[in-house]
Amino acid sequence: MSRRAWAVTVRYRASLSLVGTVLRYLSIPLLVPLLVSLYYAESVVPFVVAVLLTAGLGTALERLDPDPDLGAREGLLMVAFTWFAVAVVGSVPYLVEAHGVPGLMAPIHPDSTLGNPANALFEAMSGFTTTGATVLGDISFDSHTRGVMLWRQLTQWLGGMGIVVLAVAILPELSVGGAQLMDAEAPGPGIEKFTPRIARTARILWAAYMGFTAIEIGLLYGLHVVGPPLGMPGLAPNMDLYNAVAHGLTTMPTGGFSPEARSIEAFSAAVQWVVIPFMVVAGTNFALFWHALAGDRTRLFEDQEWRAFLGVLGVLGAIVSAVLFTGSGFVETAPSGGTFETAYLTDVAAAVGASVEPSIRHALFQVVSIVTTTGYANTDFNAWSPVLKYALLFGMFVGGSAGSTGGGVKVVRWYIVLKTVRRELFTTSHPAAVRPVRLNGRPLDEDGIRGVFAFTALYLVLFFLGTLVLFLDAARVGQGLSVLATMSAVAATLGNVGPGFGAVGPMGSYLGFSAPAKLLMVVLMWIGRLEIIPVLACLTPEFWRR
Amino acid sequence: MSRRAWAVTVRYRASLSLVGTVLRYLSIPLLVPLLVSLYYAESVVPFVVAVLLTAGLGTALERLDPDPDLGAREGLLMVAFTWFAVAVVGSVPYLVEAHGVPGLMAPIHPDSTLGNPANALFEAMSGFTTTGATVLGDISFDSHTRGVMLWRQLTQWLGGMGIVVLAVAILPELSVGGAQLMDAEAPGPGIEKFTPRIARTARILWAAYMGFTAIEIGLLYGLHVVGPPLGMPGLAPNMDLYNAVAHGLTTMPTGGFSPEARSIEAFSAAVQWVVIPFMVVAGTNFALFWHALAGDRTRLFEDQEWRAFLGVLGVLGAIVSAVLFTGSGFVETAPSGGTFETAYLTDVAAAVGASVEPSIRHALFQVVSIVTTTGYANTDFNAWSPVLKYALLFGMFVGGSAGSTGGGVKVVRWYIVLKTVRRELFTTSHPAAVRPVRLNGRPLDEDGIRGVFAFTALYLVLFFLGTLVLFLDAARVGQGLSVLATMSAVAATLGNVGPGFGAVGPMGSYLGFSAPAKLLMVVLMWIGRLEIIPVLACLTPEFWRR
Ligand SMILES: [K+]
Ligand SMILES: [K+]
Repeated sequence: MSRRAWAVTVRYRASLSLVGTVLRYLSIPLLVPLLVSLYYAESVVPFVVAVLLTAGLGTALERLDPDPDLGAREGLLMVAFTWFAVAVVGSVPYLVEAHGVPGLMAPIHPDSTLGNPANALFEAMSGFTTTGATVLGDISFDSHTRGVMLWRQLTQWLGGMGIVVLAVAILPELSVGGAQLMDAEAPGPGIEKFTPRIARTARILWAAYMGFTAIEIGLLYGLHVVGPPLGMPGLAPNMDLYNAVAHGLTTMPTGGFSPEARSIEAFSAAVQWVVIPFMVVAGTNFALFWHALAGDRTRLFEDQEWRAFLGVLGVLGAIVSAVLFTGSGFVETAPSGGTFETAYLTDVAAAVGASVEPSIRHALFQVVSIVTTTGYANTDFNAWSPVLKYALLFGMFVGGSAGSTGGGVKVVRWYIVLKTVRRELFTTSHPAAVRPVRLNGRPLDEDGIRGVFAFTALYLVLFFLGTLVLFLDAARVGQGLSVLATMSAVAATLGNVGPGFGAVGPMGSYLGFSAPAKLLMVVLMWIGRLEIIPVLACLTPEFWRR
Repeated sequence: MSRRAWAVTVRYRASLSLVGTVLRYLSIPLLVPLLVSLYYAESVVPFVVAVLLTAGLGTALERLDPDPDLGAREGLLMVAFTWFAVAVVGSVPYLVEAHGVPGLMAPIHPDSTLGNPANALFEAMSGFTTTGATVLGDISFDSHTRGVMLWRQLTQWLGGMGIVVLAVAILPELSVGGAQLMDAEAPGPGIEKFTPRIARTARILWAAYMGFTAIEIGLLYGLHVVGPPLGMPGLAPNMDLYNAVAHGLTTMPTGGFSPEARSIEAFSAAVQWVVIPFMVVAGTNFALFWHALAGDRTRLFEDQEWRAFLGVLGVLGAIVSAVLFTGSGFVETAPSGGTFETAYLTDVAAAVGASVEPSIRHALFQVVSIVTTTGYANTDFNAWSPVLKYALLFGMFVGGSAGSTGGGVKVVRWYIVLKTVRRELFTTSHPAAVRPVRLNGRPLDEDGIRGVFAFTALYLVLFFLGTLVLFLDAARVGQGLSVLATMSAVAATLGNVGPGFGAVGPMGSYLGFSAPAKLLMVVLMWIGRLEIIPVLACLTPEFWRR
């Protein structure tokens, strides 16, 4: 097939044009950190540059096709492109902060690790995909402006419910092909269109998402405000408005970025208890909330995926609580190159062991944070014993629910896999029997089941292969990594979880990797957020043929 | 449903009766170690007791149903029972050697670790399933008779090509239902019946297996004999007839037991190079040899599974060779609790680094040994750096070919999984397209593909869950295990590989686990050898209902 025939079969200009529209609209949320910087009397140049660049690039792309019309393949391409494009332009404020603009502004923080383009792209992709893996060297306002730090939080919030879902909600030109686009972007095997018009569904999803975010911000800031008058100054002393907003913006998208270097450990037990249920909500299928608000609460409480999701949280939480409570849940000596000191280990072990509330809180918070793929830490779980780290690694593969903002394989897929395996055991001993696999009472079609298995297998194959490649690269550059650290780095980026173990632990960072390794992980985060298949489909030769 | 209705639906007596027939015949190979003990002037009591017990139990079980007639479920049950039963009676010589027989014989080696029933069962199941994981404390003729050590080797040889295949080959009463029984036992998704009569197929398989075993024994012993006359006394000085037979019996079944504590490291480079191709042969589909011997050699060389299998060996071998050659393939310091000393590490690193033949030999031998699930070691790969250990762990999941004696997931399953995923990528962008998945040019039916995915998913789920349970048990008893060691213990027992890393490394043993953990691994080896589904099917309630 000639090159020319290639070029005309997939109308990539139509895809790029719509990417342009999304970019043009992206300049609006960029005004939020601009205003924050203005409020804190910081330079607004990083955001002015980003707004101009994003709007300009968007307008230019839109000109490629004034009346874009998307088929199946153009839709896949548009979704895959969109997510890469937002990460690229989203990294601009980080680069400008570090390098300044010649003749206009001197570098604000010339030592920022995000001055390196690979790092800036990593941080932006990690943000939009709600991964929450960081390459910030020093997470503090000494090294970054409050505007940039808020942008970092905001990227997660924008990516959480889905940039394409947001586009479908607000762009009238997507009211026709929108369902298919949302399918390509949405977490889980197929989204539920719970209203006849897809734009309305998208708007409801975003409204619920905004509502939960507002409630969490209100509760967090409320604790801060009511503490002193109630005579409880320790209730949430450092959860000021900035922090309440910053964490509200990263809980609901299961993002996990925090402007605090110690993540949620920096806050009180009360704050931690408030965050837990919001992570659970973020990991729940949002369609179920819609049904519950519409009066049908049994849909939520009898949903098989939700029950399995809560079951996993309960069982894993109980196991981890029990091990922490016995006092054997901590490593005996601080490992060299770890992210904590022996004194820290002794303190945490003493506070948690044999104490009911701390052991349940540490266990439940971390299990919920990892399984929902939020990635917050209320303790440096690098200090935990290997068995508990393995339990968390295990949890990374479970993931959130379909239709939630969580990543990973997703509970419903495991549920379908296990029910189908069960059916296979039955047909082995009853070869003549025909039995459909049911979910919430409805039989699933075999094509859908096959898709679930293909995704799950591909996910695990990419995990194992990605770990091998990352490990070989680490050996090449002489970066001393353990098997667990390397596996967790791949599981945490592909699953959009964020922190792993060892050097990439919750108080560590991904800075130590080589630039090629970081770019590999950028790709893992990207394809992980879009659930692999849509992106990889664009990379096959058959995609480009008639 | 009443208990009585349960009892009559599956005619378990028919299954047990045939298990009895197999046991009765098992008393014949027990005569081999008996004769060896006689030759070396050791007590024959362990084997006399085992012969009597096996023949007696077999005869008693046969009486349960004088004219057994197997349906689908009775066949599954018979296969599952058979493999458990042979492990139980196979452990008798180990127990008698340690405990003696009151009034007849004093204990021969009262300190034998196999005096513990859980250990004896573990060693016997590890033997028959060709796992090769050991709980021997001291692997030497000081702690065990030559007869018992040969029995340990022989269990692997008997299990390798399949006990049920052997039964079908020699028992006329299985000439009708034999194909189905072999399907339940055979490694891989369905066996190829390359002759019209199943008993003939079974006989050909066993004949080829015996032939390859005889050739290997001849070559190994030949090296030993011709070395001194050729002026090369170092060619194979310690590969005497006992050792040649002992290793011939454990290569072709991809077993990996060795009477030498240092496994194949105890032998010369020439011996190691001879063993490598036999491991490759053992990991190949035996039906292909049949076709090649029948004159159709293209079937072998163009077989997609075989080419993928050799490709995996080549790529992994090249990677490991390169890393060893650069000298960065070894850990910098000997870990505490490891199975080697710093002096050993220095010696091996010095001999291998920057030397072509040793680095290729060490790499290729270990990669072939692990991927084929043989489990021999020609070096203590615990001394290798984490990235190489991970590469070997990765190889454990590949496994041998369908229709070979190898374990693991099997190459053809991964091949089908990846081709189906590729098809899924295609249908994502071409929703209307219908395209079959082909293997060697023939389209696969969708039910078969679903079975492959179900197996692969179940395998990985059992791996992750088994690791969690084993790890929790290790934490319970205060056994210090790393994540890698625990994962490798589960991968190596479920995949019938044998050695893992850390305490369960190639020069270590599984002795340190608790009795419940050992029993868990006995079950993993058992279900792993029978490819999980047949055994688990027997454990579902539906199996026992009409
Ligand atoms: K996250
Ligand atoms: K083995």
